[in-house]
Amino acid sequence: MLQTHNQLGDDMTSHADADERFETILATAHALADLAGRAILPHFRSRLAVENKAKAGRFDPVTEADRAAEAAIRAELARRHPGHGVLGEEMENEPSASRYQWIIDPVDGTRAFIMGLPVWGTLIGLAHDGKPLLGVLDQPYTGERFWSTEGRSLMRDRGGERSIATRPCAGLAEAILTCTTPEMFKPAELGRFQALAARARMTRYGGDCYAYAMLAMGGVDLVVEAGLKTFDTAALIPIIERAGGRITDWQGGPALGAAQVVAAGDARVHAAALAVLGGG
Amino acid sequence: MLQTHNQLGDDMTSHADADERFETILATAHALADLAGRAILPHFRSRLAVENKAKAGRFDPVTEADRAAEAAIRAELARRHPGHGVLGEEMENEPSASRYQWIIDPVDGTRAFIMGLPVWGTLIGLAHDGKPLLGVLDQPYTGERFWSTEGRSLMRDRGGERSIATRPCAGLAEAILTCTTPEMFKPAELGRFQALAARARMTRYGGDCYAYAMLAMGGVDLVVEAGLKTFDTAALIPIIERAGGRITDWQGGPALGAAQVVAAGDARVHAAALAVLGGG
Repeated sequence: MLQTHNQLGDDMTSHADADERFETILATAHALADLAGRAILPHFRSRLAVENKAKAGRFDPVTEADRAAEAAIRAELARRHPGHGVLGEEMENEPSASRYQWIIDPVDGTRAFIMGLPVWGTLIGLAHDGKPLLGVLDQPYTGERFWSTEGRSLMRDRGGERSIATRPCAGLAEAILTCTTPEMFKPAELGRFQALAARARMTRYGGDCYAYAMLAMGGVDLVVEAGLKTFDTAALIPIIERAGGRITDWQGGPALGAAQVVAAGDARVHAAALAVLGGG
Repeated sequence: MLQTHNQLGDDMTSHADADERFETILATAHALADLAGRAILPHFRSRLAVENKAKAGRFDPVTEADRAAEAAIRAELARRHPGHGVLGEEMENEPSASRYQWIIDPVDGTRAFIMGLPVWGTLIGLAHDGKPLLGVLDQPYTGERFWSTEGRSLMRDRGGERSIATRPCAGLAEAILTCTTPEMFKPAELGRFQALAARARMTRYGGDCYAYAMLAMGGVDLVVEAGLKTFDTAALIPIIERAGGRITDWQGGPALGAAQVVAAGDARVHAAALAVLGGG
């Protein structure tokens, strides 16, 4: 699913193929989030004509905001890192001529966005050799940003900047579980999700990408979703992992590119959730 | 359910019984919201020991924030309007010695609150002779406030202050429907909600009181809930009505004090929803 260096041949040795300093690419990620926020915010809570790109009757809105932000991000990446690949929700995949692949979703949580709820976010992920390297989740209306560095995860809001960490949770009976909507599950998936919800302390819907940030901050113990695309999770994986959490598919395999994802703040809850979700 | 003047006897003629200027009581409502926000915010996203006041296994957290805010609100009301009644979620009902009854819920959306999601709100309603007179919904983390005046509804955020209005919606097929969680419905109620959801354009969960504000702003067409208490709706009714919407119980009766509530931005959608929810 990812266009990475490996797919392009290991013998390629362009200038763009050299590894870059982490600080440089993290600065790029923040700049992209800034650009996206400026492109998106004028559309938030405006009375948009929301287009419908649904197939088979599923409502899946795309806004002008999405496209404007993705165009701004792609232009900036072409300027800063012309050899980097770009995988986005709206536009054509730009193959990578380096070991770097940006994976972006300008407005994750389009339903929340069109309703006016501030729990959508701009997702900017970067994979290196096909593995998640860093992520930024930006919420420009509330002024919140969550991101990963090489060793930790941080957030900033109008109150300042701080490290964030998941919280301990001994097991499902203590866990707060969330997903965006039960409609995201196929029937067999829904049965497993409901079996998990029956064991959890509390279940709540409606978080979109924002719920993963709450998990990284220690407000949520478990996010279980399905029907996801690569750009839904790429930015979130490093944020959750550097905050001390664990995120995989429902069988315990890599989350990047998986449709079924389980994220937990505590490895014990992650293992307990896998036992319910992945069995059989 | 409400302690109003009428229940205290129409012949009572204390000083506090005189009607006050609307501007005076609206200023009080804003001051109460300010006080509540200052009491609540230090607790938001702190690692609280959340108490559980659940009965029969239902998880219904109460935080220190709730109690601190309600205490601050009650003290301020006792100082400004000693004859006014106060009905709150946390503390004893304070009977009214006037035609005014404040109806408050310091943290509506406690589940969102403990998860760290900014879609909870402080609800401050005022009833006059048992009828909703004004309401304030405050979200101190995002810096948003929604309120009603005598003739319109307004909101302010960090971008400024403006009038708000519901949007036109011709019928259910165009309507965005929301409720906090399907768990709020009893089985018979859930069947009716699902019948409604099947006809709506889109359904989303997780809004709490914030969803009613989105309806008043024109981002949502229909909010349908059940299991509500008087303090869940008292502040929202005037905000929705002055914004051009309609809010009643599922049979079309008054929303104040009703457990089953339907709010719509357009009267056509309200009528269509009643036909599905209230029938039989």
